[in-house]
Amino acid sequence: MIDKLIEQITKKDAPIVVGLDPNLSFVPETIKKKAYSELGETLEGAALAFKMFNKAIIDATYDLIPAVKPQIAMYEQLGIPGLEVFKWTCDYAHEKELVVIGDIKRGDIGSTSEMYAVGHIGKTEIGSSRIAAFDEDIVTVNPYLGSDGVKPFVKICEAEKKGIFVLVKTSNPSSGEFQDREIEGRALYELVADKVNEWGESTIDPKTGYSEVGAVVGATYPEQGKILRKLMPKSYILVPGYGAQGGKAEDLANFFNEDGLGAIVNSSRGIIAAYKQDKYSSVGEEKFEEASRLAVIDMKEDLLKNCLHKI
Amino acid sequence: MIDKLIEQITKKDAPIVVGLDPNLSFVPETIKKKAYSELGETLEGAALAFKMFNKAIIDATYDLIPAVKPQIAMYEQLGIPGLEVFKWTCDYAHEKELVVIGDIKRGDIGSTSEMYAVGHIGKTEIGSSRIAAFDEDIVTVNPYLGSDGVKPFVKICEAEKKGIFVLVKTSNPSSGEFQDREIEGRALYELVADKVNEWGESTIDPKTGYSEVGAVVGATYPEQGKILRKLMPKSYILVPGYGAQGGKAEDLANFFNEDGLGAIVNSSRGIIAAYKQDKYSSVGEEKFEEASRLAVIDMKEDLLKNCLHKI
Repeated sequence: MIDKLIEQITKKDAPIVVGLDPNLSFVPETIKKKAYSELGETLEGAALAFKMFNKAIIDATYDLIPAVKPQIAMYEQLGIPGLEVFKWTCDYAHEKELVVIGDIKRGDIGSTSEMYAVGHIGKTEIGSSRIAAFDEDIVTVNPYLGSDGVKPFVKICEAEKKGIFVLVKTSNPSSGEFQDREIEGRALYELVADKVNEWGESTIDPKTGYSEVGAVVGATYPEQGKILRKLMPKSYILVPGYGAQGGKAEDLANFFNEDGLGAIVNSSRGIIAAYKQDKYSSVGEEKFEEASRLAVIDMKEDLLKNCLHKI
Repeated sequence: MIDKLIEQITKKDAPIVVGLDPNLSFVPETIKKKAYSELGETLEGAALAFKMFNKAIIDATYDLIPAVKPQIAMYEQLGIPGLEVFKWTCDYAHEKELVVIGDIKRGDIGSTSEMYAVGHIGKTEIGSSRIAAFDEDIVTVNPYLGSDGVKPFVKICEAEKKGIFVLVKTSNPSSGEFQDREIEGRALYELVADKVNEWGESTIDPKTGYSEVGAVVGATYPEQGKILRKLMPKSYILVPGYGAQGGKAEDLANFFNEDGLGAIVNSSRGIIAAYKQDKYSSVGEEKFEEASRLAVIDMKEDLLKNCLHKI
């Protein structure tokens, strides 16, 4: 999958992923009204609102971007109807030839991680059938349980040519509480990075030289990004935290390799709720998807001018 | 919720939780045949098999046990139909007055963890409605992202009288890879345990003295269990790994407080696939639920004789 991701990044000339993390506070009133009038103020009604919202944003941005990253928590808050829209969103993004990164942050003991891996990037065997339950291309994985919890995902990456991004140094303010703690002179996140190399070794794509096992490193920690970039030269880094969370383009050069590849920067709120920003207020809530398109164009320019030219 | 859990444990005289982790290899052929003949070898067919299997096991054991712990990964492998059966299982267990521990191991940045917390143990606000999407009583939480990722769950524990178990030292063979690493002379799991105390402080139930914030510590690590029991005196410990994973009753005394409370021991395969063990083979696959009932009775006796009498 890493070859397809790089191909899409190169083709669209944009190391950008749009985080499809809908929230009822982001969805314009007109959409909510329409959805609630059809299905009520119910889980189904809210899920329909998410679907209409996501469709408009995908339609308005797919030609500019290589990938989308739906955050499954947003859909899980709406129970089954929400998860139906998560699945729909993955499928619709595939129709538009986008790479789908399921931000699921799963991880468990071996036999259980295997079920998550099968359900999200593999195929479930039922009698003589083999069925893809959610069918994402890449998922995020939590490493707290160690190799047992990650290797079942790697096995499916090998078999099905899929990918994972392992949480190494997350973008949130308290990520240092455990991740930064020193173990024999090195931070925990560096130990996790060593393992990312080890886990990915068998999955290196001969064409691109990159591994199917990437890492999540927050844009909010550019110094750590610099260290981790060097530590995992063959891993793509998924960089959340740009924009709304405070990460700046100037700091993002640290996350790329000298070939201009090696990182993909996520923006969620900054794109999907762009219409709420002063900058795009003239576009208006009714044309929220146009504001999202403008925000993608601006993000691309910002990265090109303030980050990619400096690599 | 901790008061209700303790009440149920005391009433049933069994610090036992049955892990409802169905897998197609555990489900008897007769059930699979029936389900597939109705809905085919599809996600829906497999989900129906899980539902029939879970119903039989709950019906055969609910009067003996305080709680069940469905592992959501098993259902997620079947996509939407599987998650419908996860929800159905939670609801059916509630009808039988069981405490439902959702083994979901979620954890993310603050705003995202909030969505998981709302969806699983809280209520989602949709217009003027407040709806419980999955409606478990207690969920498991991954601490790798630090306080940001756990506090939204704690907030809901306070508001809705629900509970969480935070992963501290997991039962799998590679759990030590990161969790055991020494930081200023102490293992990472001890640092997480300190935080469990801190996170739980505001949620201590005045009646029982226990906090709504518990911990997961594997039965397979009794020495660490001893340390962690003392380190978190007000936290209930959810102890997976008994039976099939190798944990023995003799070692479980370490996980209990002197009041005979403070721990609840999970068994999944050992109960739900009991009919496959030589010990229960005379019961036969057709009466698999009777084998599960016998396995619960045997587990209770084993704990009483080899563990609880030694506290």
